[in-house]
Amino acid sequence: MPSMIPTPGLGANALLQPIIAFLGPLGSFSHQAAIECFGLSNNTLKAEVSFNDAFSAVQSQEADYAIIPLENSSNGAVVQTLDLLADRESLYPDITVSAEYYLSVHHCLLMKKAQDGQGNSSETTPEVSKFYSHPQVWGQCTKFLSAYGGVEKQDASSTSKAAEIVSKDNDPKSAAIGSELAGTISGLEVVKANIEDDPSNATRFLVLENLRSNRTQPLKSAGESQACSKPGSKCKSLISFMVDHTSPGALADALHVFKKYGLDLTSINSRPGGVKAWQYVFLVECQRIYGVHDDHVVDKVIHELQKITQTCRNLGSWEDQLMEK
Amino acid sequence: MPSMIPTPGLGANALLQPIIAFLGPLGSFSHQAAIECFGLSNNTLKAEVSFNDAFSAVQSQEADYAIIPLENSSNGAVVQTLDLLADRESLYPDITVSAEYYLSVHHCLLMKKAQDGQGNSSETTPEVSKFYSHPQVWGQCTKFLSAYGGVEKQDASSTSKAAEIVSKDNDPKSAAIGSELAGTISGLEVVKANIEDDPSNATRFLVLENLRSNRTQPLKSAGESQACSKPGSKCKSLISFMVDHTSPGALADALHVFKKYGLDLTSINSRPGGVKAWQYVFLVECQRIYGVHDDHVVDKVIHELQKITQTCRNLGSWEDQLMEK
Repeated sequence: MPSMIPTPGLGANALLQPIIAFLGPLGSFSHQAAIECFGLSNNTLKAEVSFNDAFSAVQSQEADYAIIPLENSSNGAVVQTLDLLADRESLYPDITVSAEYYLSVHHCLLMKKAQDGQGNSSETTPEVSKFYSHPQVWGQCTKFLSAYGGVEKQDASSTSKAAEIVSKDNDPKSAAIGSELAGTISGLEVVKANIEDDPSNATRFLVLENLRSNRTQPLKSAGESQACSKPGSKCKSLISFMVDHTSPGALADALHVFKKYGLDLTSINSRPGGVKAWQYVFLVECQRIYGVHDDHVVDKVIHELQKITQTCRNLGSWEDQLMEK
Repeated sequence: MPSMIPTPGLGANALLQPIIAFLGPLGSFSHQAAIECFGLSNNTLKAEVSFNDAFSAVQSQEADYAIIPLENSSNGAVVQTLDLLADRESLYPDITVSAEYYLSVHHCLLMKKAQDGQGNSSETTPEVSKFYSHPQVWGQCTKFLSAYGGVEKQDASSTSKAAEIVSKDNDPKSAAIGSELAGTISGLEVVKANIEDDPSNATRFLVLENLRSNRTQPLKSAGESQACSKPGSKCKSLISFMVDHTSPGALADALHVFKKYGLDLTSINSRPGGVKAWQYVFLVECQRIYGVHDDHVVDKVIHELQKITQTCRNLGSWEDQLMEK
């Protein structure tokens, strides 16, 4: 699979392969993003059981990187990730975002390989006795499933688990719906690819690193001005802050700082601030263009924001990977 | 229970009691909000099985009002409500928000009434053989439950369902955790009240009406300038819009309109726009103060926003009910 962003290498001190944490199980879309983004060679991919564990692994430097879903194009923001990035209890003070990766989310019909050596894939509507998948997937493949009106659908805890169940099922007509990777891990065949309703469905992942690590060659070590260093290239930065909710206009004033420096706001999310009811922490993502904006514009924005907001934090800068279509 | 906002009455044409839709089952926190906000007399409260059904009931005028949770102080925004308010497919063109209601979320230990006529409530840690509740509740009552280390906890589909199970259980030591209302409906006794970890936990509800209805005497019929008519009173307005994501600064420009008119932004939420991946619909809530802002300031903001945004819609204005503490 193609590596869409340059795999950060190791510094001179490195003795071991870089360790990349992702949310498991094996075969999950986070696993797929880790493989596509970092590659399988010269890396150790480590499945974590929760988002918190992936953040903790980077903070404690047990892992060099974590790759974490931020938002899906259909379902919106991943709230657990926003809450961990907001870091209300300062559990992850050394974590920084250093890259993003857009993963296309495709579903496949996965079945056991035909015993007669013939593939199943020539049929438009292959015969299926029972489907297994994660419950969210049924609603993402409605067009494909409409041809299977009477066929039983069994929920599984993940698409990886669904593929595993089918691989152990004696019925050759059992089928799982999930990613190609989930099928590969369980030794299943892709009988039909891209059976999802929305072919543009994608998830944006963030790559996390530890600011204090000397094992990585991150963008962060080069400073903000290096994250976006090709003429015309775009760079995103993520900044979190709280505003005094008793001060009228405080949020508008904070957002005005971005406008003052000509930075485009590419996303705004708010989450409960965790201090007092109805007070929020804002996660604002802005974009600058190399050659258009001052190289240190984000530092200047942060400096101004710190005067008018609370707990303002620069969560990192990285090169924009979104291709306009 | 106290009615915190004036119950909108009926117009001269009304023949029937107003119908208020809420998300069921009976005994849900939405049901409790409906009772507290509208009262039980001279109203018909109607449980709906989904948020969509509650919106549809108001759009079709089968219901006069719906009361819908917008956000919880601990868990943040209710995404389904935001998506329905964003109304990407124009299914609810006549729906407007005309009021808000803050419901304190309290949990109680609910058990069958003692057969001997003695209450259970004198004990600090009443004996319990098994707990029933909605899975989210366990994490909201950890301090109380820490005294019951070995006691089994059984998940139920709702706290109302948990109370119903306990009411039919032969074991007098079975207990449900849920609202007082859920207990009352199933004939259970409140053995201990306020067993939640966070006593300030609250949910904000919005009251929806139909712009075209002539059965209600809503704030909307009086126009924006009447929603906030007491000197010093505060009025919130909710506005949705999309911006051209290929135009740098478009979001900042839209938000600057609010600042230009001196309006405080009280919340911003974004959701996938549903047209193209990574294009968002924004739901911005702003606040004006009677006597400080122009009575028609929101109309002016909308007018300016319509020039620089897409699908800009005024979703309603209502009196702020948040009491600063």
